[in-house]
Parts: sequence; C-alpha cells; structure tokens
Amino acid sequence: MAFDAEPFVNPMSISEVKLPSWPGGARVGVSVTFDLDADAATVGDARDAGRPPDHQLSRLSASSFGVRRGLSRVLDLLEQSEVRGTFYVPGLTMQLYPEAVQAIAAAGHEVALHGFWHQRMDRLSLAAQREDLMTGLAAHEACIGRPKGFRAPGWELTTRTLQLLSEFGLEYDSSLMGDDRPYRVGVQGAELLELPVHWTLDDWPFLGFNGESGQLADPRLPLGIWLAECDAAAHESRHVTYTMHPEVIGRGFCMGALGDLLAGLRERGAAFVTHGELAEMLHEDV
Amino acid sequence: MAFDAEPFVNPMSISEVKLPSWPGGARVGVSVTFDLDADAATVGDARDAGRPPDHQLSRLSASSFGVRRGLSRVLDLLEQSEVRGTFYVPGLTMQLYPEAVQAIAAAGHEVALHGFWHQRMDRLSLAAQREDLMTGLAAHEACIGRPKGFRAPGWELTTRTLQLLSEFGLEYDSSLMGDDRPYRVGVQGAELLELPVHWTLDDWPFLGFNGESGQLADPRLPLGIWLAECDAAAHESRHVTYTMHPEVIGRGFCMGALGDLLAGLRERGAAFVTHGELAEMLHEDV
Amino acid sequence: MAFDAEPFVNPMSISEVKLPSWPGGARVGVSVTFDLDADAATVGDARDAGRPPDHQLSRLSASSFGVRRGLSRVLDLLEQSEVRGTFYVPGLTMQLYPEAVQAIAAAGHEVALHGFWHQRMDRLSLAAQREDLMTGLAAHEACIGRPKGFRAPGWELTTRTLQLLSEFGLEYDSSLMGDDRPYRVGVQGAELLELPVHWTLDDWPFLGFNGESGQLADPRLPLGIWLAECDAAAHESRHVTYTMHPEVIGRGFCMGALGDLLAGLRERGAAFVTHGELAEMLHEDV
Amino acid sequence: MAFDAEPFVNPMSISEVKLPSWPGGARVGVSVTFDLDADAATVGDARDAGRPPDHQLSRLSASSFGVRRGLSRVLDLLEQSEVRGTFYVPGLTMQLYPEAVQAIAAAGHEVALHGFWHQRMDRLSLAAQREDLMTGLAAHEACIGRPKGFRAPGWELTTRTLQLLSEFGLEYDSSLMGDDRPYRVGVQGAELLELPVHWTLDDWPFLGFNGESGQLADPRLPLGIWLAECDAAAHESRHVTYTMHPEVIGRGFCMGALGDLLAGLRERGAAFVTHGELAEMLHEDV
Repeated sequence: MAFDAEPFVNPMSISEVKLPSWPGGARVGVSVTFDLDADAATVGDARDAGRPPDHQLSRLSASSFGVRRGLSRVLDLLEQSEVRGTFYVPGLTMQLYPEAVQAIAAAGHEVALHGFWHQRMDRLSLAAQREDLMTGLAAHEACIGRPKGFRAPGWELTTRTLQLLSEFGLEYDSSLMGDDRPYRVGVQGAELLELPVHWTLDDWPFLGFNGESGQLADPRLPLGIWLAECDAAAHESRHVTYTMHPEVIGRGFCMGALGDLLAGLRERGAAFVTHGELAEMLHEDV
Repeated sequence: MAFDAEPFVNPMSISEVKLPSWPGGARVGVSVTFDLDADAATVGDARDAGRPPDHQLSRLSASSFGVRRGLSRVLDLLEQSEVRGTFYVPGLTMQLYPEAVQAIAAAGHEVALHGFWHQRMDRLSLAAQREDLMTGLAAHEACIGRPKGFRAPGWELTTRTLQLLSEFGLEYDSSLMGDDRPYRVGVQGAELLELPVHWTLDDWPFLGFNGESGQLADPRLPLGIWLAECDAAAHESRHVTYTMHPEVIGRGFCMGALGDLLAGLRERGAAFVTHGELAEMLHEDV
Repeated sequence: MAFDAEPFVNPMSISEVKLPSWPGGARVGVSVTFDLDADAATVGDARDAGRPPDHQLSRLSASSFGVRRGLSRVLDLLEQSEVRGTFYVPGLTMQLYPEAVQAIAAAGHEVALHGFWHQRMDRLSLAAQREDLMTGLAAHEACIGRPKGFRAPGWELTTRTLQLLSEFGLEYDSSLMGDDRPYRVGVQGAELLELPVHWTLDDWPFLGFNGESGQLADPRLPLGIWLAECDAAAHESRHVTYTMHPEVIGRGFCMGALGDLLAGLRERGAAFVTHGELAEMLHEDV
Repeated sequence: MAFDAEPFVNPMSISEVKLPSWPGGARVGVSVTFDLDADAATVGDARDAGRPPDHQLSRLSASSFGVRRGLSRVLDLLEQSEVRGTFYVPGLTMQLYPEAVQAIAAAGHEVALHGFWHQRMDRLSLAAQREDLMTGLAAHEACIGRPKGFRAPGWELTTRTLQLLSEFGLEYDSSLMGDDRPYRVGVQGAELLELPVHWTLDDWPFLGFNGESGQLADPRLPLGIWLAECDAAAHESRHVTYTMHPEVIGRGFCMGALGDLLAGLRERGAAFVTHGELAEMLHEDV
C-alpha cells in the first residue's frame, strides 16, 4: 500500500523559550490583558460582513460601553490592586477616544496594537492586512507612541500577518494558542515571541451575548476556571495570560469577579507582569 | 507613515444626565419593564423573514401565552409587591388584546410603544419604519392614549429611528446599551433621553428557547446576576432597568424568581420608578 | 393619523376548559409523555433537508438507541413507579419495531400518533401532510389500533394540520404552547382539545446534543425546573405535561433524574393520568 | 386506508454480544480513549469546507496544543494512575509527530486509526473514503504498525465506511451510538464489532469552544455525568467508553477533572481495558 497523500506542512515552527525567574521569587507569572475594542468591535464586524458600520446603533452602543463606562471601573480596580495591565487597542478606538487611551498609558499600563478596524486578518487580502496594520501603527504613534506588541482581532491571523508584524518591527504577538506559556513562533521570513491566549481564559465566551449568539453564565463560573488555571501554572512555574473586555467584565455585576480574580492571583503569590515586561524578561534570557 | 484610513464617525453623541435624588432617600432607582410582545413576536419575525405569519402555530401560540396567562400572573405579583412597571406593547398586540392592555393601564402601570409589527427597525426601509411607528402610535391612541416612550423590537434601531421618534414627539427611548444609567443620545436632527437596557438584565437570553436557538438555565442564575447588578448600582446611586417577557418569566416555575427579584430589590432599599416617571424626574433636573 | 395597517388575524381561537377534579383528591394532574422517535428522528430530518436518510449512520444509530435500550429502562421505571404514560410514536418507528410498540401498549400505556416520517408539518405541502398523517394512522391501526391523539414532530404544525386531525377524527392534539393547562383550540372548520407542551418541560433542550447543536447540562437542572412547575401547578390545581425522549432520558446517567421526577411528583400528591384519560375526563365535564 | 409509504430500511443490523467477565471480578469495564487530532482537526475541517488548511493559524495552533502540551500531561497521569488507554490518531498527526505517537505506544497504550485527514466520512466520495483510509493505514504501518480498530472523525460514517473497514481487515469500530455497550453491527457485505461512544461521554461538547461554536462549563459538570454513567453501568455489569481530546482535557485547569475521573472509576472498582483488549475478550467469548 503506497503512501501517496499530498503533503501538508504546518507553516509555523515553534521553539520553547526558557521562562524567567519571576520577580520576588513568585511561583507563577500572570499578565492581565484587556481588549479595548469599543466601537471598532461593531465596525470591524460590519466591514467583514459588508454592512454599513453605523446601522445597528444598539450593538454599536454596547461596544462603546467598554470605553465609556467599563474602562474607568477597570482602571480604578487595577490601581487599587496595584496591578499594571496590557491594553490592546484598535487604531480606530484610539482615534475616537484619544484621551481615554492616554489615561491608560499615564496610569502605567502598556498599550499595544489590536489592528485598526478590528477586522479579522484571515478575511483580508495581504494588501488590506498591510494597510490595516500600518494605519493602526500610525494611530498609536500619533496618540501615545509605537507599541511593542500586537494581538489579532478575533484572535485569528495568517502567515502573512506574522511576516508583516516582523517587517514592522513588533516584538511579540498575543493571538495564538499553541502552548500555555510563551514560545517563539517562526514562519518563512519571520520569527516572533508569542504570548499565547486561550478561549477559556477570556471573559467573552462565558459572559458575552450580542443578541444573536453567546453564552451567559454567572461570573463565578469563569472565575473558578481562571484561578484553577493559575494553580496549575504555579505547579509548573509557568505563565498565564488572561484576556478581558471592558464592555463585558466592566458591567457592574461582573466587576466583583474581576476583583476576586486579581485578589485570588495575589493570594496565590503570582507575579503580575505586562506583556511588554514579559517580552523584555524573555529577551534578556536569550 | 501617513494616516490615511477613511474616517468612521459614530452617529451618536452622548451626554450624561445628572441622576435625581431617589424617592424616600433610596440608594438606587430601578425600573421593572415588560415587553408584552404576544403574537407580534412571531408575526414580526415572520415578516422579517418573508414567511407567512400564521404558518407556525406552535410558535405563535407560545408567543400568545404571554398575554393569555403570563400577564395576569405578572400583574398580580406587581400588585402584591406594590410595584408599578412599564409595559412596552406592539400596536398589533394592542389591537388583538385591547382589554388586556387597558387593564394594565387601569392598574397604574405605564404603557409605552414597541412598534406595530415587532419588526427589527434596522431591517426596514425608512418609509417602512415611519409607517410602523405611525400605525403603532395610532393603535396606542385608539386604545389608551399617546405613549411617552419607545423601545425598539429586538433592541435594535438606526439613526433614522431616533429621528422619527423625535419627529413624533416621543420623550425617551429604551433600546440602547451605551451606558448603565440614563443618558441623552443625539443624532443629526434629534435628541432623546435614553433609558438603557442590557442583555444580561433581560430574562430572554437566560431562559428563552424557541426550538431552534436559546439557552435554558435555572431562573436563579439570572436572579443572582440581577440582584448583583442592583448592589453595584446602589454603590453608585444609579439606576437599573430590568426587562422581562411575560411569555418567559410568566411560566409557573419562573414566577418565583420574579417574586424574589422584586423582594430582593425592596430589601436593598431600591426606589421603583416607571420609565415615564424617571423621564419626568430627569427633565425636571435639567 | 390614520390607522391603516393591513390586518393580521390569529387563525386560532382558544377557549378555556374547566379542569376536572383530580383522582383521589389530588391537587394537581400530571401526564408523563414520551416521544419514541427512534430512527424516524434522523429519517425525518434527512427528508426535510433532502439528504439520504441512511447516510449518517452514527446519527441514525443514536436515534435508534431510544427504542433499543432507553425504552426498556423507561418501561421498567414506569412499572416500578406505577405510572402509566403516553407514548407518541411515528408510524415508521412502529413499522420498524412493532413488537416494542406492542409491549408498550401491553403494559397499559397509551400510544398516540406522531406522524409517519417525523417530518415537520409546517414544511410539508397540504397533500404531503395528508399523506403523512394517513400512513401514520394506517401504521397504528396495523400494529395496535387507532390512536386518540396526535403530537406534531418538532412540535410545529399549521392550520391545515389541525383541520386534518379533525377530519381524521382525532380527539386531541399535544403540540401547542398557548397555555399551561388544557384548552380547546379552534381553526376554521375544526376544533380540538389541546393538551399543551413547552420546551422547558422537555428533556431535549437541556440534555440533547447531536454533534452540531444542543446543550448539555446536569440532569438535575431540568429536574429542579420540572418539580418547580409541579409546585406552581398545584397552587392552581392545574395540569402539567412532561415530555421525555427515551434516547435522551434513557441514558444510564439520566435515568436517576427521571426516577426522581416521578418520585417527586408522587410526593407532591400529583395524580398521574395519560393524555387519553385526561381527554376523556375533560369531555365528560363538557 | 391503504398503507402506501415508500419503505425505509435501516442499513444496519445489530446483534448483542455477551459481555465478558471483567478482570479481577470487577463490576464494570471502562475504556478511556483519546482522539489525538492535533493539526488534523483544523486541516480536516478546512478540507471539508474547501478552505486552505494553513490560513487560520490560531485555530491550527489550538489544535496542535493537544500533541505539544496536552499529550504529555495525559501520558503522565495515565502512568501514575496505572491506566492504559486507546489513542485514535489521524495519519496526518502520525506523519507530523511520529515520535510522539511512538512514545504513546512505547508506554503500553493502544494506537488506533482515526482516518488520515480527519475529514468527515459522510462528506467524502467512496473513492475519497477509500483513499483516506488507505493512506491512514499506511501512515500507521510506517510509524508503529497496523491498527486493530478505527474511529471516524466527527463520529460520523456511512455504510461504505463499514464495508471498507471490513475489507481492510479492521476488527472493530468505535463511532456509533446504537447502544451503551459493545455490539456487532452488520451492513451488506460487512460485520464489525462496535465499541460505541456518546456525546455525553466526550469532553468536547462540554468544554470545547473554537471561537464560533461550543459550550464552556466547569469541568466538574461532565465529571459528575461521567461518574454517574459508571455507576449506572456497574448496576448492569456493562462497559463504558470515555472519549477525551488532549487539546481540551489537557489544559491545566482541566487535568484535575481527568484525574478525578480516573480515581473515581478506580474507587468504583472498574476494570480498565483498552479497546483492543476488549475486542479480544469479546472475540474469545464468541
């Protein structure tokens, strides 16, 4: 029996990185990240679907809640908890709410790139990907300066995206799920540090609902999962990235769960690091 | 790197309103609202989809349960709890069940506009939106008089909807999600008071199922969320709008959760106000 | 402002029926019903979708589990619990497994019509509806005799279905959701006794999953809801119809919940009646 | 009334097999199986949908997590628990990660066929099914030798699949759901031992989410169901097959549930057998 299947080659090569010693002798490192999508969430979906972006005002308003109300709650809690986070911000959001983004940076948090229009990279042509990333970077530079890292909207991207990130000099990506700790991902002509994410470490799949799809659970459901993941990570001295959306976790009844998450991580002796700090620690170790 | 993205302009301008002192020195104001969709829920979906509205009798009957059986339970509970609510009623429902709607008004509750056919405003032409709102208003006038406020079916609307509401002299809308307290929303040529809603403060996404989509949870799941939101609101002296559907919450096994919600809000010292009363309080403060 | 909306007329007229005194002075009457879809569930879906009915063998086998394994567990439990149920059986299932259906009848349970192919009535032409019902009735007559009642596959039907049921002399239907107690439903040229159902009183929306859609919960979730509905019904001396699927509730880990349901209903003093007995009690009261 | 429905014939004939006495006098036999899909999960879906398989890198990376990280956790736990499992491996996965698969076999576990491309058999032509199975078998032979059994990707297959399995000399299949214990399934020209599965005994429907569909629950939800099924099986001295995916159950926060499952099965006195051992025991009994 001949073996004649056409070949499939995974375009990504992955190499492990040595994890750093966590500050203060902590057993586990954690990064608390926020996707400040705001209006761009609805605008990006509309552009992907070929709909006018300003036609569904309720959905648009639900997106803008994140920056209008959820953000200040999140920033207050982070300050009280003495935690600095990483905020992934689409260029459009930065253009619409520059002062809000500048306040994030002024409070000591990292701000990183989340595209311009919050469109799915795998649905764009190479030229459109390039333009989206370039306008996103320009918006960042005009507002608070050049970001170190990138996260793909909808956590999906292509080989070309990684090549463009490398071409534009970004140091890390945070969109892939190939491991549960930082690793290096290579594609033809590019290598980047990957700070991986996962759906189970995100608020949206548990608590998000847009009228058509989604799941609505008690916030204590994901809270239990998130703390259990920290416990698992502590046994391996590894790192965990959590992803929150201010329009989801920033609702009044959800903020308690975010507070309990930060307190629970603190109790477990976790070291809080931003993605930029983590990237720097990992580069130093090379 | 030039910044050459085509501009996106959010058509809504939002301005905060000063919240009133709640009656009796209460820490938080709450409005308990009901969407009395009845037959119109199925008829509107069928019209949106181009199906005959009287072809799926089981679905149609499930909608009519709200006015036939759920409504009286809700009205009895509201009377026992000494709570007055706001009922959003499609014109069609009013036309089919005029006495039921008159009984709502006679019991001291507010009745407000929910379109005529319960169609999604964002799926109608401007002319069709205008006709739907005009026939809805005419149905209200013929039955119990002109309403003060409006809620969009499916909680979705367009700039034109807001302009039409302003043209027709409505004082407030309750369909958007841009904040978790009342605000003023402006679009070109119109400004309205917005009494915002949210999917997590609605019974449908937790407890509704129509044979094709939906989620079925224990009613205590949303009950916990709804009371937690009241607690969060009390810390900020703000307001919360709850939305219930008599065909959902009016099932026998669900009514206990609605009773517990009203009792829990009372225990928390909440002031119950209808949307019309809230609009008046907010206008006085201007 | 002229009122010029085109009229919508709900084709169903509904009239309440006086509920009987329950046997033994019970506070509440309950009917435990089973849809013995078996192969017909997959065959009907395939016919609706224009797929060959024997192409997805895993799905077909999962359907047949109901009659091969789930049914005997259900029958054993009913015997131990001294409860007689109503089994809605598609003609095709009866044709494929005549002895299984005869054993149901021999154990004292009622067997009623569930179409022939388990296709959705609202997706069939009038001629196809007529043929499906006629072949279904012929299968029943050939196997165990003419049924008294009917339940529509997928709980959906049209005006024509009700007219056909009346033409064929069936006494009751159990597919609609217009109330939570028996009622009479009339359409042009037909009137039937309706023994209504609801998605929340069915095992499938809580516990069913077919690889593409569905929800999987702990069986205690619907159990709590089902018993709460009995409590609510007892306060109103009314009736509740429960619907189970042997391929769902008949799994080993689910049977405990069905046993707890029957025991819980018994503890609450419920009178168990088949749908046929209920129809007879209600006719006597006219 | 003539009975004129066109005939439907279920192409599967099923015959019960006598279950063996479990080793050590155990009351119940259990098989813990793993589908090591890895990259093939994304590649197969992409081929089914006509998308390039290397375009959605995040989804591809999430699939590869199973072999990169989840697998070693699973293997460690199995070793500590002294449990040998059955791993269903697509040919592509074996081709991409031969050493990982060889390590599974070296640890004493069974490795069985899961197609080559992880495509749905019911979506392939007969020629494509044949080619997929042949290349899958060739990959197994080149890596660790000929497998005894087969599981269909997505647990779906056709009559032709069973005929091909028989033609290729495979002894058992583990894809159908016609009973909750082993049985023999026959189609025209073929008979196989079936070791049946079920969605409720799989980690994916409870814990899997791919950004578009899925459900996310606390791992203790399926754990409770899985142990309850073991209890039910023990009362009938039968067998249960559990199915896990290293990319799902292998996440840090999930491994505790898998550990609790194995410990709970051990406490219940279950005998752990691989699918190959079970097949051999059942053949001996014939």
